[in-house]
Amino acid sequence: MDLSLNKGKDKRVESDLIGKMELSVEAYYGINTLRAMENFSLSSFRVHPELIKGIAAVKKAAAITNQQLDLLPAKKAEAIIQACEEIMEGGLREEFKLDAYQGGAGTSTNMMLNEVIANRALEIIGEKKGSYQLIHPNDDVNKGQSTNDVYPTALRIAVLKLLVPLTDSFASLQGALQEKEKEFAEVVKLGRTQLQDALPITLGQEFAAYAEAIGRDRWRLYKIEERLKKTNLGGTAIGTGLNTPQTYIFKIYQQLRQVTGLSLAQAENMIDITQNMDVFVEVSGLLKAAAVNLNKIASDLRLLSSGPRGGIAELRLPEVQAGSSIMPGKVNPVICELINQVSVEIISSDQAVTLAARDGQLELNAFTPLIAHKILNAMEIMQKGVDIFVSKCIKGIEVDISRCEELLKNSLAGVTALVPYLGYDKCSQLAHKVIESAQSLTEVVLSEGLLSRKELARIMERESMTRPGIINIKNSD
Amino acid sequence: MDLSLNKGKDKRVESDLIGKMELSVEAYYGINTLRAMENFSLSSFRVHPELIKGIAAVKKAAAITNQQLDLLPAKKAEAIIQACEEIMEGGLREEFKLDAYQGGAGTSTNMMLNEVIANRALEIIGEKKGSYQLIHPNDDVNKGQSTNDVYPTALRIAVLKLLVPLTDSFASLQGALQEKEKEFAEVVKLGRTQLQDALPITLGQEFAAYAEAIGRDRWRLYKIEERLKKTNLGGTAIGTGLNTPQTYIFKIYQQLRQVTGLSLAQAENMIDITQNMDVFVEVSGLLKAAAVNLNKIASDLRLLSSGPRGGIAELRLPEVQAGSSIMPGKVNPVICELINQVSVEIISSDQAVTLAARDGQLELNAFTPLIAHKILNAMEIMQKGVDIFVSKCIKGIEVDISRCEELLKNSLAGVTALVPYLGYDKCSQLAHKVIESAQSLTEVVLSEGLLSRKELARIMERESMTRPGIINIKNSD
Amino acid sequence: MDLSLNKGKDKRVESDLIGKMELSVEAYYGINTLRAMENFSLSSFRVHPELIKGIAAVKKAAAITNQQLDLLPAKKAEAIIQACEEIMEGGLREEFKLDAYQGGAGTSTNMMLNEVIANRALEIIGEKKGSYQLIHPNDDVNKGQSTNDVYPTALRIAVLKLLVPLTDSFASLQGALQEKEKEFAEVVKLGRTQLQDALPITLGQEFAAYAEAIGRDRWRLYKIEERLKKTNLGGTAIGTGLNTPQTYIFKIYQQLRQVTGLSLAQAENMIDITQNMDVFVEVSGLLKAAAVNLNKIASDLRLLSSGPRGGIAELRLPEVQAGSSIMPGKVNPVICELINQVSVEIISSDQAVTLAARDGQLELNAFTPLIAHKILNAMEIMQKGVDIFVSKCIKGIEVDISRCEELLKNSLAGVTALVPYLGYDKCSQLAHKVIESAQSLTEVVLSEGLLSRKELARIMERESMTRPGIINIKNSD
Amino acid sequence: MDLSLNKGKDKRVESDLIGKMELSVEAYYGINTLRAMENFSLSSFRVHPELIKGIAAVKKAAAITNQQLDLLPAKKAEAIIQACEEIMEGGLREEFKLDAYQGGAGTSTNMMLNEVIANRALEIIGEKKGSYQLIHPNDDVNKGQSTNDVYPTALRIAVLKLLVPLTDSFASLQGALQEKEKEFAEVVKLGRTQLQDALPITLGQEFAAYAEAIGRDRWRLYKIEERLKKTNLGGTAIGTGLNTPQTYIFKIYQQLRQVTGLSLAQAENMIDITQNMDVFVEVSGLLKAAAVNLNKIASDLRLLSSGPRGGIAELRLPEVQAGSSIMPGKVNPVICELINQVSVEIISSDQAVTLAARDGQLELNAFTPLIAHKILNAMEIMQKGVDIFVSKCIKGIEVDISRCEELLKNSLAGVTALVPYLGYDKCSQLAHKVIESAQSLTEVVLSEGLLSRKELARIMERESMTRPGIINIKNSD
Repeated sequence: MDLSLNKGKDKRVESDLIGKMELSVEAYYGINTLRAMENFSLSSFRVHPELIKGIAAVKKAAAITNQQLDLLPAKKAEAIIQACEEIMEGGLREEFKLDAYQGGAGTSTNMMLNEVIANRALEIIGEKKGSYQLIHPNDDVNKGQSTNDVYPTALRIAVLKLLVPLTDSFASLQGALQEKEKEFAEVVKLGRTQLQDALPITLGQEFAAYAEAIGRDRWRLYKIEERLKKTNLGGTAIGTGLNTPQTYIFKIYQQLRQVTGLSLAQAENMIDITQNMDVFVEVSGLLKAAAVNLNKIASDLRLLSSGPRGGIAELRLPEVQAGSSIMPGKVNPVICELINQVSVEIISSDQAVTLAARDGQLELNAFTPLIAHKILNAMEIMQKGVDIFVSKCIKGIEVDISRCEELLKNSLAGVTALVPYLGYDKCSQLAHKVIESAQSLTEVVLSEGLLSRKELARIMERESMTRPGIINIKNSD
Repeated sequence: MDLSLNKGKDKRVESDLIGKMELSVEAYYGINTLRAMENFSLSSFRVHPELIKGIAAVKKAAAITNQQLDLLPAKKAEAIIQACEEIMEGGLREEFKLDAYQGGAGTSTNMMLNEVIANRALEIIGEKKGSYQLIHPNDDVNKGQSTNDVYPTALRIAVLKLLVPLTDSFASLQGALQEKEKEFAEVVKLGRTQLQDALPITLGQEFAAYAEAIGRDRWRLYKIEERLKKTNLGGTAIGTGLNTPQTYIFKIYQQLRQVTGLSLAQAENMIDITQNMDVFVEVSGLLKAAAVNLNKIASDLRLLSSGPRGGIAELRLPEVQAGSSIMPGKVNPVICELINQVSVEIISSDQAVTLAARDGQLELNAFTPLIAHKILNAMEIMQKGVDIFVSKCIKGIEVDISRCEELLKNSLAGVTALVPYLGYDKCSQLAHKVIESAQSLTEVVLSEGLLSRKELARIMERESMTRPGIINIKNSD
Repeated sequence: MDLSLNKGKDKRVESDLIGKMELSVEAYYGINTLRAMENFSLSSFRVHPELIKGIAAVKKAAAITNQQLDLLPAKKAEAIIQACEEIMEGGLREEFKLDAYQGGAGTSTNMMLNEVIANRALEIIGEKKGSYQLIHPNDDVNKGQSTNDVYPTALRIAVLKLLVPLTDSFASLQGALQEKEKEFAEVVKLGRTQLQDALPITLGQEFAAYAEAIGRDRWRLYKIEERLKKTNLGGTAIGTGLNTPQTYIFKIYQQLRQVTGLSLAQAENMIDITQNMDVFVEVSGLLKAAAVNLNKIASDLRLLSSGPRGGIAELRLPEVQAGSSIMPGKVNPVICELINQVSVEIISSDQAVTLAARDGQLELNAFTPLIAHKILNAMEIMQKGVDIFVSKCIKGIEVDISRCEELLKNSLAGVTALVPYLGYDKCSQLAHKVIESAQSLTEVVLSEGLLSRKELARIMERESMTRPGIINIKNSD
Repeated sequence: MDLSLNKGKDKRVESDLIGKMELSVEAYYGINTLRAMENFSLSSFRVHPELIKGIAAVKKAAAITNQQLDLLPAKKAEAIIQACEEIMEGGLREEFKLDAYQGGAGTSTNMMLNEVIANRALEIIGEKKGSYQLIHPNDDVNKGQSTNDVYPTALRIAVLKLLVPLTDSFASLQGALQEKEKEFAEVVKLGRTQLQDALPITLGQEFAAYAEAIGRDRWRLYKIEERLKKTNLGGTAIGTGLNTPQTYIFKIYQQLRQVTGLSLAQAENMIDITQNMDVFVEVSGLLKAAAVNLNKIASDLRLLSSGPRGGIAELRLPEVQAGSSIMPGKVNPVICELINQVSVEIISSDQAVTLAARDGQLELNAFTPLIAHKILNAMEIMQKGVDIFVSKCIKGIEVDISRCEELLKNSLAGVTALVPYLGYDKCSQLAHKVIESAQSLTEVVLSEGLLSRKELARIMERESMTRPGIINIKNSD
C-alpha cells in the first residue's frame, strides 16, 4: 500500500487508546485510519468507492437529523454535510486507500470516513486538521451512530446504486437477444438434447429462450432491490438503539431517503438485521442464478459456432482479435470464454459471501467487509461482462443458413413426428435402419410403404415441426 | 442394488433397440428400467418418492386429457389413471429401485414410470405384463409427453409437496423461538460483538432476533412456491410442443391443477424452461440463506451454553445424551452440532445444484437428476433437522439468570452509555482505567467526579440500556 | 429410522445420566445408542460400514493390548475380541442403524460399538445383555480409549480400506484408456482448441493424454495412503493421553498394524491430530482433482460423439439404453453424463469436508461425522462410477475413421505447419483466403506459387504433423 | 482501464486479420494487446506481475535456444534476450495493463509479451517500434512456441516464485507459535471439546498443536513445488510439438532451468499437460488445507481471548487499533478476523480454480487465465495475511495465568482421571453431584469416602493430567 501521503515532512500527532502516531498534516484521515492501513495491508483492493459514498450519505443524513434535533450545532453540521457531499460526488478519493480486506465488521472503514469528514469539515470552517475538540470524528460525525448500523446500511445503498447500471446491462442483453430472435425467426435448424440430434427448432426460438432466461434475471435484480430496503440505521452497536433518541430514528430515515433517493426504511427488528447477513446470501444467490444463465448462453454460443470446419458451425461470432500466437487465421470465441469466467467468479464469490455470513457470531457479523467486497465486485464484474457480451458478441452474431439446413436435412430429427402415426417401436426401427443404411428417412419410409409421399410431406413440413400440433393426415387428403 | 425381483423363475422377454432381455414375470418395470438399473448402480439413493409421485400425477393428468380429446380409449385411460393413483398413494414402491444418480435428464425415471404404469394397467384390465400392444408405455402412458417436460414438471410438484412440511417446521421453529423470547423478556445480559463484551441486551431480544431471521426464511419458502408454478408440460422434448395438439396443452394444466391441488401453469416460453435450470439454482439459494440462519442460531447457542464452568454458560441446553465415552458427566450440544452439519449439507448441496445447472447444453440439461436429488434431499434433511432442533433443543433451553447478571455487572458494557455525556475520548480512558484497575466502572466514574451518583444510576439503569433513547440527566434532577 | 428391534415384547432397562430407558432384550446396542438413534433421525444414511469395521478393529487392538498389560482379564478380553472380529467380518450389521449425520464428534458411533461389542461379548460368555457389571461398554470395551482418538483412527482405517478398490478402479480405467490408445494409434484427426479447429493429432494421442491424467490420479491415491498413516490412538480425549499408560500407547500400534494389515503409526503430536482435520481436507482435495479429470474425459467423449449427424461424430459410444421416451432411435451418452454428475458430487462433497473441518474449535472438531460421511461416500461413488465408466463406456468406444479423415481434410489444420516457411502474417492471409474461397489450402498455396507441390506435400504429411520437428524442405529435394 | 498511453499524438498503424488500428508511437505493445485491452476491460486486476516475468523468462530461454540452433540470428536474439531480462527485473510494467480476466487461454497475455519484447528489442537495435519485418512478435519472439505451452509453463514459474516468500511466511508463523509453546509450557489450563470443559492441557501444548499443523502446511508447500516441475514447453499448440525441432525441446529445458533457477523438466506427455489443469486444482487444494488450519488457529484465538470480562479471557491479543466508533475502550481481535477472511478467500478461490479446470475441453483449457489469476492472488493474500498474523498477533499474545487457574480449578476436568479407579458410571454420578451442589469435586469424593486425600492428590496432580500414564495409587503409598 502506498502510504506516501503520510511521508510529507510536516506532521501532526494524534493519539488513541494504544498511543500516539505522527500523521502528515495534509492527511485528512486520522490515527484510526492509519492504524488500519498498517494492520490490513493485504490486497490490491481498496474499499469499494460506492461503499465510501454510501457511508458519506449516511453521515450526511445523520448530520442533518442531529442538527434538526439540536444535537449538533448548525456550524458543525453544515461543515460536516458539505464534506459528506464532496465525498458522495467522488471527492477526496485518494484518502480512502484502506484495504477492502479488514478485520472488524467495517469499523476501520467507518472510522476512516469519520476522520476524513471531520478533518475536511475542520478545513471548511478554517481550522487545522486534527482539531477534534472542535469537530470530533466520533462525537460529532459519528453522532448517534455505530459502525454496526452505518456499515450495513451503506452496503445496502451501494448495492442498490450498482443495481442501476447492472439492470440496464441486463436489459440491453435481453434486447440484443430479442433482436436476434427476430432476425433468425425463420431459420429452421436442428435442436439438440444431450448433444445428440433431437428435433427441429428455429434459431429465433433458441434466442427467444435465452432472452426469456435473461428476463428472469431482470426480475431477480428487481427482487434484490426489494430485499434491501429494510435496514438497521438507528440500531447503533447491537440493534438496541442505545445512545439514539427515538425521534432521531424516526427522522433519519426521512433524511436518508432524501439524500440517497432510495426508499429505505427501518427494519422491524434492528437487532436481527445487525447480526444476520442472510439477506446478502440471498442477494448473492440471485446473482448466482443469473450467472448460471449467462454461462449457459456463452457455452451454447461456443458450441454452435464451433468449427469453422470441424464443428457445428451454425453460427459465426464476431471476430474481435487474432486467436493464436502460433496458428495463423485462428479466431476464438474469447468473449464467450470471458463470460464463462465471469460466471465462475460470481459463483465463487457467492461461496465467500455464504461462508462469511455463516461465520457471524452473537450480536454481530465481524466478516461483513468480505461480504461487501465480494458482492460489490461481483456486481461490477457482472455488469461490465454483460456489456462486453452484448457489444462484442451478441450483436454481431451471424448465422450460416446453409449449414443449418444441411445438418437438419441429414439428421433424423423428423422421425419423432412420425410417432403419432406409426408408433414408438416402429419409428425406433426406422431410425436404426436410416443410421445403418445410406438412405434418408423419407426413402426408408416410402420404401416400406408406411405412408404416402403426400402424407409424409405434410407431417415433415419443417415449420410445423417447431410448433405444437398433430396434423390430421387422413382428413387432409 | 437388489435386482432380486428379476430373479424369479418365470420370465418374460422384452426388447428394445439394443436387444432382448429377460424379466421376471412379476416385475412391473420393463426393459428400459432394467437397463437403467444395471447402468446406474452407483449409490444407496433411490429416486426420491415424491418425484415418483409427481410423475405419476403428471401421467394421470395426461391420461385424463388424452381421453377427453379422444386420443386414448376410455378403457386404457381408466386403467392408466388407476395405476397412477396407486403410485401417488405410495403403492408399488418396491418397483422403483432405480438409482437417484443417473445419466440422461431423467429419461430412465420417466421410462420406469411408463413401464410400471403400463404393466399395472395391463394387470388391471386382466392382461399379462408386457402386452404392450394393448397398453404401451410410450405410445399410451407417455402419450403427448416427453421426459423433458414431464420430469421438470414432476420435480416442481415434488418440491412444492415437500415445501408444506418444511414450512410447518420453520413455523414451529419460529414459534418456539418466540416462546423463548417471551420467557426471557426480562433477562438483561451482556451483548457481545466480535466475541467481545459490548452492550446490554435482553435474552428475549436475542431470541426475538432469531425468530425474526426465521420469519424471513418462512418468507423465502413462500417465494419458492411462487417461483415454481410455471412449468413446461406440453412442450415435449425441447419445448416446441411437437406431437401435442394445442388443445391438449390447454387442457392438461386444468387437469394437473386438479390432480395435484397445486396452482401450476404453463410457462410463457416452454423452450426456455425445458433447457434452463436457473430457477432451481434460485430455489436452492433461498434454502441456503435459510441454512445460514439455522447455523448462526445453533452456533450462538453453543457459545452461550459453553461451560459448564469454563465458558459463557448463560444458557443451559437440554441434555439429550451422554457426551463422552471417556469423560463421565460431560454433556455436549449435539443437537446444535447436528444443525451446523445440516447447514453444511445444504450449502454443499447448493453447490452441486449450481454446477449441474451450469452444465446444461443447448436444448436440455442432462444433469437434472442430480439437481432433483440434491434439492429434494436438502429439503428433507432440513425439515427433519429443524424438527429435531425445535423438539430436542430450543424448547428446553433454560437460562442461568445469576450468571447473566454476574457477567453483565463485571463488564464494561455501561461505558458506552456515558458517551453522550462525557465524550468518546474520555470514556475510552475510563474504560482502560477500569480494565487495569480492580475497580468497577461506577467506582472510577465517581472517584473522578465526572457524574453524580444519581446521574450515573439513571444512565446505567439496565433496562433503559437495551432500548433507544438518551436520558436527559440534567432535567431529571 | 426403523427402531423395530426395540419393539420386541421382552424388555431390559438401562440407565444413563439422563435417566432410564427400556430396550428390547434382543438389542445388542444399549441406551446410548438408542438415545442417539432418537436424537439423530435425519437421513437415509447409516454410519458407513467401513467405519463400523474400523472401530471394531481399534477395539480389538485395544483389548489385546489391555490384556497383555493385565488391565483386562483374559476372559473379558477374549469375548470382546471375538465380538470385534465378528463385526469386522460384517456381522451384526442390523444393530448399526444409527444415522450418519450426528452431533458429537462421533461419540454416539463409538458408544454404539462399545455397547454392541459389550453385549455380544456378554452373550459369548453366556451372560445376559445389559450385565455391564461383568463387561462394561466404557470401562472394558472402551478401556484406554476415547471417541476422540478411536474415531479419527477408525476413519483413517476406513479410508485406507476403500482406497484399495478405488485404486483398482483407476488402474482399470487407465488400462482401458491405454487399450484405446493402442487401438487408435494410427487414426489421424483434427485437434481442437477452444472448440475451434487447431492442429492434427492422433486419436491414440488423445487417449494417451487421458490415460496420463488418470495415471496422475493413481499417484494421488497413493499419496492419500501416505497421508493417513499417522494417527492419534492413545491420545484419548484431547491428545494428551490421559488414562493411558505409556506402554499401552507403544503396544497398541503394533496390535493395530497386525489387526488391520495397515502400516499405521503414532503421530508426533497427538493433540494436533485430535483437533485438526486438515488432512482430510487435503485428501478430499486430491479426490477432487481426480474428479476434474474424470469430468474432462466424460465431457470430451460427449463432444466427440455428438451427432450422429449434426455434431462432431468422430466417436461412437456404446449404446446402453434407449435415450428418449418420445424420440425413437435416440441414444444418449448417459454413462458420460453419469460421470459428470459423479464429478459434481465429489466437488460438492469436498466443500462439505472443507467447511466441517474449518468449523473445528479448540481441542476437538465436533463435525467429524460429516467429514467421515462425505469422504467415505465420495470414495464409494467414485469407485463405482469409474467401474461403470470403464465397462459400459470406455471399453466399447469405436471410431468413425472416415469422419475423422473428412473433418481433418476440410480443415485449416495444415496452415500452422507452413509458418516456419512462410511466416505468421502470410499464413494468416492464406487462412482467410481459404475460408472465404471455396478452395482448399493446398490449392491456394499452389496458386500463389508459394511452395512447390512436392515441398507442400512433405510439410503436410499428416503423421509428421502430429510430432515435433521441422522438415528441411530445401535439403530434401 | 487507462488506455492513455495510446492517446499520444504521434501514431503508428498496425494491422491484423481483422483490420488496422492506430497505436501511440510510444507504446511497446501492439495491435493484439490493444484489441485485448479493449475486449477485456472488466476488473481492476491486471495480469499478475510474476506471470509477466515468467513469460519473459520463457521467451529468454527460447531466444537463447533458437540462437544456438541457428534458427534466430544473434543480433535479433541478443536484443530479444535483453528485452526479456528488463521485464524479468520489473521493467516496462506500465505496458502490461491487460486485464487479468480474459478469454482465450492466455493468448492475449502471450501476444502482449511478444509485442512488447519485439518493440523493445527493435528499440535496442535502434529501430522504430512496429518494424516487425525486422523483429517479429510471432515469427521471432514466439519462435518455436505457442501460448499453450508458454503460458502454463510461465504459470508454473510464477507459482514457484511466489512459493518462496509464502514458505518463509509459514516458517515464521511456525516459529512464532513454537516460541509461544515454550513461553506457555508451564501454564496448565482447561482443555475444551465441543466448547465444553474437558481435560487439563497446557497452553504450551495448545500452541504446539498449532505449530505442528502449520508444519504440515509447510510440507504441503514443499509438495506444491514438487508437483509443478514438469511442464509442456516445446509442446506448442496442443502438445504434439508441431513446429519445434526435437533438439529445440531438449535444449530449451536446460536454458529454462538456468534462466529461472528452477528445476523444471519436460512432462512425459505434453498433450496431457497442455489440456489438463488438474495439477493446479491439486495445488489449490493444498493451499485450501493450509487455509483451514489458519482459520482454526484464528478462531481459537478469538475464543480464548473473548471477554475481557464476559468470555473465556485466558489470552490477551495485542491491541492494534481501537475497536469501535461508538463503544470506547473496546478492542477487537481484528487480525484474527482478517485471517478468517483470508481463509474464506482461499476457499472460494479454490472453487473458482476447480470450476475453471473442470471447464476445459478437448486439446486445451480456455479458462487458464482465471486459474492463474486465482492461484497467484490466493498465494499473495495468504502470504501477506500470514505475515500480518505473525507480527501483529501471534508474537504479542499474552496469557492471563490466574484466569487459566481459576477456570481449571472450578471445572470438572479432573473427574475423568478418576475413571481408572472408580469406573465410568460412578464418575458420571460424581460429576452430576458436583454440578448440582455447591461443592468441589474433591469435596464430593472425600465426603463419599471413595479415595483418600493422598490418593486423590496424586491422581489430580495437574501436570500429570496433561500427559499419558496411569498412576499406581496403591503402590505409591
